[in-house]
Amino acid sequence: MQKENIMDYDTVALDEEKNELVIIDQTKLPGKIEIIRLKEAKEIWDAIYLLKVRGAPAIGVAAAYGIYILAAESSADTYEAFYEEFKKKKEYLNSSRPTAVNLSWALNRMEQVVLDKKELPVAEILACLKEEAKEIQAEDIRVCKAIGEYGLSLVKPGDGILTHCNAGQLATSKYGTATAPIYLGEERGYHFRVFADETRPLLQGARLTAFELQSSGVDVTLICDNMSSSVMQKGWVNAVFVGCDRVAANGDTANKIGTSVVAAVADHYKVPVYICAPTSTIDMDTKTGADIKIEERPAEEVTEMWYKERMAPEGVKVYNPAFDVTDHELIAGIVTEYGVARAPYETSLKEIFKKKEEDIRRKKNGRQ
Amino acid sequence: MQKENIMDYDTVALDEEKNELVIIDQTKLPGKIEIIRLKEAKEIWDAIYLLKVRGAPAIGVAAAYGIYILAAESSADTYEAFYEEFKKKKEYLNSSRPTAVNLSWALNRMEQVVLDKKELPVAEILACLKEEAKEIQAEDIRVCKAIGEYGLSLVKPGDGILTHCNAGQLATSKYGTATAPIYLGEERGYHFRVFADETRPLLQGARLTAFELQSSGVDVTLICDNMSSSVMQKGWVNAVFVGCDRVAANGDTANKIGTSVVAAVADHYKVPVYICAPTSTIDMDTKTGADIKIEERPAEEVTEMWYKERMAPEGVKVYNPAFDVTDHELIAGIVTEYGVARAPYETSLKEIFKKKEEDIRRKKNGRQ
Repeated sequence: MQKENIMDYDTVALDEEKNELVIIDQTKLPGKIEIIRLKEAKEIWDAIYLLKVRGAPAIGVAAAYGIYILAAESSADTYEAFYEEFKKKKEYLNSSRPTAVNLSWALNRMEQVVLDKKELPVAEILACLKEEAKEIQAEDIRVCKAIGEYGLSLVKPGDGILTHCNAGQLATSKYGTATAPIYLGEERGYHFRVFADETRPLLQGARLTAFELQSSGVDVTLICDNMSSSVMQKGWVNAVFVGCDRVAANGDTANKIGTSVVAAVADHYKVPVYICAPTSTIDMDTKTGADIKIEERPAEEVTEMWYKERMAPEGVKVYNPAFDVTDHELIAGIVTEYGVARAPYETSLKEIFKKKEEDIRRKKNGRQ
Repeated sequence: MQKENIMDYDTVALDEEKNELVIIDQTKLPGKIEIIRLKEAKEIWDAIYLLKVRGAPAIGVAAAYGIYILAAESSADTYEAFYEEFKKKKEYLNSSRPTAVNLSWALNRMEQVVLDKKELPVAEILACLKEEAKEIQAEDIRVCKAIGEYGLSLVKPGDGILTHCNAGQLATSKYGTATAPIYLGEERGYHFRVFADETRPLLQGARLTAFELQSSGVDVTLICDNMSSSVMQKGWVNAVFVGCDRVAANGDTANKIGTSVVAAVADHYKVPVYICAPTSTIDMDTKTGADIKIEERPAEEVTEMWYKERMAPEGVKVYNPAFDVTDHELIAGIVTEYGVARAPYETSLKEIFKKKEEDIRRKKNGRQ
């Protein structure tokens, strides 16, 4: 019998015995909780491309486990052959979604292990890769919890919170990013009233966010994306929390299409917009949002994908970008695991990374 | 065989011989052009409530023909009995949609005929009612054309125009309101690039606007409601034209849910927002938008109505307002059949009504 609560499942997991990637197929939610097991490169690529696993941090974890699983299948008998194969597989997985920086971030981290452990036999490199992937996931959980704590400091009990898309538990390993303050608040009796944008065209807000929040007892109300103004006009929203796929050095933020709409509307009603961003999504090499490549997806997602029948005329032109860029001036704060960055972001994000480096140094020293 | 172009059909018509209301069932578009015939009060009420006929001006015309058809069925043999029946039927039709002022405006105009022609036999009152309903429709066409001319003066050839919901031919008797500048421009070789918001939850933009514009050769691109920011950020939009259901004396405008979202986004990108408003939708007795009653509609429209399967968890709370109010400060101009009103609207809308009164006086004198 299937367990009923989505929170009892892992969004992404590694079956170490069978060497398989185990995920919830998120395209089947909320109708059905279907667990799928992936082993082949094409299966893993498809799972990311088709959004069976989605959300920047979860994609990172899935890619890390994925590249480990593929590396473990290698029959290469020299380091050079192993590394050549690894790079090809890495490039292949990396091509599944262009916008999420966590994908390449996690894959690069895994590659670094292969480079660092060059002197070891392949079997030992594989053991290190497995440890690194598990550490990426453990870090994800610690990071989300820290973001939750910092986010919680920005709101008060009973507040109305609006969120867009799904930056929830289903987008990470636990807590989510934008939902972390909500889950932590719920544990502490804050009783937020949450508004979830349905998030066209793929409906992650309706299918995933409304589902996981309701499933864990949060007071959630589903709205269409174009109702954000109405709920803010009524004074029902005290803060907006959203996730992100890539934050540029100036604070411009690429996130699910529609985020910049919410931000412009919130600006009009003087509601603060907080981007919940693990530092792994902050890309200091990207100067501004204009430098972020935005993925365009098939027209059918808009015109027919979920519908009983086609909902737009045949042959109509469709523009379907998966993400948009929110101007940094519309953002009240970027909530990271090292604290809340405020404008000017050029400076505050650097401060965040300084804290991160110190933290990493401290941990390394602790280990020595 | 069915004609292929929606523009060849009347949105609303009276079959004088059979005494039936003939409409395109807009809930069947774009898949199928289905013409339906209505005679009973419940059928007409349902057609308005279920949006088979929709758009403020078209609702007004349908209600005018509808009340005439119902009145013609009366078996009352005294004026008093006839008027009592008329009032009941009028109240009934008037209850089908609370926000659109054209509904009560058209019904009140029809009632005024009954009151003015008190001295005539019922059969002659009926003839006058039929003439009045036809005049309401003829006026609708003249008004839309005038709005088109004034709207066209606000843009230039090749401009990008964004529109929300359907304030098109399908919402009126001809030309539409927000689409009137587009259609007139097309006739004159302006070649606008139009972006049509799909308009959740009922998808009027995808099903109706994209359909009728494409059908008449306009360069139209369908987007989800949450993509308006992306297309404006890219500089693709020079003006927003939308219709309205009710304009308050201060310019606050109730229109399809999401209009105020578009307006806030346009404000951020400095794109002007024009409300295309027949004076029949301007309600000087409504002081501000806060006084406009906003219809709330069933949750199922959001969670399952069009979908192959339910897209939100069972039992989730849903907020589904049909309209929202756009603050007058987000509106660059209100385009009426008597010219373009600009802020401050308290004054400029009064000027528009002065012009209207003069026009009516002139026409009356001309007739005498």
